[in-house]
Amino acid sequence: MNISPIGVIRNPTKHRSPDSEGTAEARIEVREKFAGGLEGIEESANLLILYWMHLNSPPDRKVLLVHPRGNPSRELRGVFSTRSPRRPNPIGITRVKVLKREGNVLVVEGLDAMDGSPLLDIKKG
Amino acid sequence: MNISPIGVIRNPTKHRSPDSEGTAEARIEVREKFAGGLEGIEESANLLILYWMHLNSPPDRKVLLVHPRGNPSRELRGVFSTRSPRRPNPIGITRVKVLKREGNVLVVEGLDAMDGSPLLDIKKG
Repeated sequence: MNISPIGVIRNPTKHRSPDSEGTAEARIEVREKFAGGLEGIEESANLLILYWMHLNSPPDRKVLLVHPRGNPSRELRGVFSTRSPRRPNPIGITRVKVLKREGNVLVVEGLDAMDGSPLLDIKKG
Repeated sequence: MNISPIGVIRNPTKHRSPDSEGTAEARIEVREKFAGGLEGIEESANLLILYWMHLNSPPDRKVLLVHPRGNPSRELRGVFSTRSPRRPNPIGITRVKVLKREGNVLVVEGLDAMDGSPLLDIKKG
């Protein structure tokens, strides 16, 4: 199955662990050809953002056991009960608060995704 | 970007609208090669399930405005503030309650996805 980016995440404060909380303002830039899908979105309080966890490139699709939060002192566990970026399909999810819309850009709070992540989807959340 | 199914959703009561609530028991069948990723998952209370909205096939990727819940009496709105399956990347998300695990199968409650949907990911949720 093929998916392609509909935009990009600009999150200047997130260059480190994707597990830490994102609280500062971030920008979600939607490509012009998809901007029509933002119609009325500024009325939403919260949204779910789907993105590609691009720092795991090429994806470590065969990893099935991980240390939670990448902390080796924590016991290994199955990847499907974690949020690790190392997983068969490295799609990330983060819930954000909508602050405002500026044309094809959403300004949001609480975006827990690394700067430069390809944007895959935005949903009611 | 390429994603591939890690299993399939068996949800016998869901053959209609993916927007209605799923409350009955459903089964998430994980392929044997990925079953190691389920280690310890039965300790989780809730999980997020990502799946491919396969009834929209081939995907209507150019649809940017939809009637919420497919109801034509409701005003058109941008697809990104809805859960419509008609969207550029038709990835669905549903939160479930974990009832039990039987080997490579999770038995869950509240799974809001159509029977036969390809499973893409399971996350802490």
